[in-house]
Amino acid sequence: MANTHNVNWEVLKDYCKRLIMTQGVPEDEAAIVADCLVDADLCGVESHGVSRTGIYLKRLETKVVNAKYEKKYDSEYPASICWNACNSMGMVTSVKAVETCIQKARETGCCFIAVNNSNHFGMAGYYARMAAEQGMFTICGTNAPPNIAPTGSYKPYMGTNPWAMAAPTAGEPVLLDMAPSVVAMGKVILAAKLGKTIPEGWAQTADGRPTTDPNEGMKGTVLPIGGPKGYGLSLFMDIMCGILSGAEFGPHLNNMWNDFENPQNVGHVFMCVDISKFLPLEVFKQRIGQMVDEIKSLPVNPGVKEIFLPGEIEQRQRSRRKSEGLELSDVVYGELRELGRKYNVEFTI
Amino acid sequence: MANTHNVNWEVLKDYCKRLIMTQGVPEDEAAIVADCLVDADLCGVESHGVSRTGIYLKRLETKVVNAKYEKKYDSEYPASICWNACNSMGMVTSVKAVETCIQKARETGCCFIAVNNSNHFGMAGYYARMAAEQGMFTICGTNAPPNIAPTGSYKPYMGTNPWAMAAPTAGEPVLLDMAPSVVAMGKVILAAKLGKTIPEGWAQTADGRPTTDPNEGMKGTVLPIGGPKGYGLSLFMDIMCGILSGAEFGPHLNNMWNDFENPQNVGHVFMCVDISKFLPLEVFKQRIGQMVDEIKSLPVNPGVKEIFLPGEIEQRQRSRRKSEGLELSDVVYGELRELGRKYNVEFTI
Repeated sequence: MANTHNVNWEVLKDYCKRLIMTQGVPEDEAAIVADCLVDADLCGVESHGVSRTGIYLKRLETKVVNAKYEKKYDSEYPASICWNACNSMGMVTSVKAVETCIQKARETGCCFIAVNNSNHFGMAGYYARMAAEQGMFTICGTNAPPNIAPTGSYKPYMGTNPWAMAAPTAGEPVLLDMAPSVVAMGKVILAAKLGKTIPEGWAQTADGRPTTDPNEGMKGTVLPIGGPKGYGLSLFMDIMCGILSGAEFGPHLNNMWNDFENPQNVGHVFMCVDISKFLPLEVFKQRIGQMVDEIKSLPVNPGVKEIFLPGEIEQRQRSRRKSEGLELSDVVYGELRELGRKYNVEFTI
Repeated sequence: MANTHNVNWEVLKDYCKRLIMTQGVPEDEAAIVADCLVDADLCGVESHGVSRTGIYLKRLETKVVNAKYEKKYDSEYPASICWNACNSMGMVTSVKAVETCIQKARETGCCFIAVNNSNHFGMAGYYARMAAEQGMFTICGTNAPPNIAPTGSYKPYMGTNPWAMAAPTAGEPVLLDMAPSVVAMGKVILAAKLGKTIPEGWAQTADGRPTTDPNEGMKGTVLPIGGPKGYGLSLFMDIMCGILSGAEFGPHLNNMWNDFENPQNVGHVFMCVDISKFLPLEVFKQRIGQMVDEIKSLPVNPGVKEIFLPGEIEQRQRSRRKSEGLELSDVVYGELRELGRKYNVEFTI
């Protein structure tokens, strides 16, 4: 078993921020990116965590991603924006877009923002949580380069385009952040990086054979949940993020891992509904609190200790890791140290 | 094998309309209900088709559903409505709500309507198609009495709450209408009605055992797609339709099959985005047309003849059945004839 290194999350965040700032990213924007990365690690979504710092830096360094946040509205209406991200970092754009979406939803009841010309935005649930914490019901997501084949084909067409949704409670939001695949390709990539095998049913090879080798799976496609249902969910997220926003879609999205000349032209969507326009937020929280209590009290199947709400496991991990520290693998820890050497940033973690 | 009866869809629709009118439903409203039912049969979703005419009539007759359409806005903002359906028929309410949603989205870019105090609305995809045909990107759905257990439990809490979404093309819309379960409980019910067994993996019994007996499955729960992902999708549809709208939620929804005293208090949601606020509708149709063409041209897996877009199989069935007639099973045909006798309506199909 690989060794792990216990790391304080705030120290880690500060280190990542300083790494990102070496590429001309203003401090407040670098802080957003670092917070998104570390938050993914905090809640156990390591595939979208600080292990991605290196590729983000490389994309900034090669100037295939703009270091300074810009935006332009291709159109704006009382309840919608078509948002041109001007090839800024996906996380900075997305935080600003959610803030704007919340503000407009407070005025009109609902707002729908589609973003084009953006980049990888990390963990979709991060933005859903932001909105829920401001009293919104929210759905958001992104498209991504192709990993999933339509049902009946072995050829990747759609990405593992995540659907994230969240609603506030008196405590932590209920938060679903799901790829429409049995697993996210990020988990296959991480397994390859860590030298682990993957379970059967996660992915097929490039010519449609089942595989437990993540290196083979990376070249092929991950499988959608519920067959045509997961295919449909992935496709509709692409219709919103790619077709409707004016970004690229399907196989036309550029790959962030090996293309340093062409911007990705990723699209995102953010939809916020202001709960207080439907019923007082406190009443909503009482009602959803009743739902949560009832679900937690259901009888469990044999061998099951506890029933979880969507997002509950991640929130519990976040809280524990904030107090007890994050366990970074040798591989990721070593990569981060190496990045410090390369970019001349003092290694503090 | 049971005999089937070939029936003209317009004759069938007229007959269903006349049956519904016997309960004091105005002709234009009865026509909406009949169209929704027959459309489900046309596209092969028999579980939500004319086989439900009997239960709809019984609910009207017992006055647990109001025969005449009414509505009241609990609140209205530029981009949202909290819509009290006044216990009207779910299909009539939903058609009116979609029309209103489209109209408001044309003004503001996006509109989100949550409906409370409603009833079973049939096939969710019907409303998604309506909106797509008017140039909208749309998501809609409903909650339903409990059939699905949260992951880790055998106790039903959420319904097989459908998610429907649609987008226009130059031809028929791309349309996903999915229950977050491996199958809809309606298919288990229909199998029981037709005396068929169900495949393993569709449902578990009331005490959590796998089963192929639809009568056992009806008493238990259908299984969610992708485990916790399908559980989450079902729950979030209930959070919108039940918690946010102010309708009932989870196990508190009343059953339409055996409770003729208490209104169901079902909730629905309709979200429309006016595509033309983002890019010219013709450009959208060109872009999605490219996506459709590319998917149809992908290489197929061994044994597969054709790759389908979401909704394509149903649309092809609808078109064929409109020209060649619908095949009604002996059971459903006999039920409809019996309803004619009972409600004194000339049997014309």
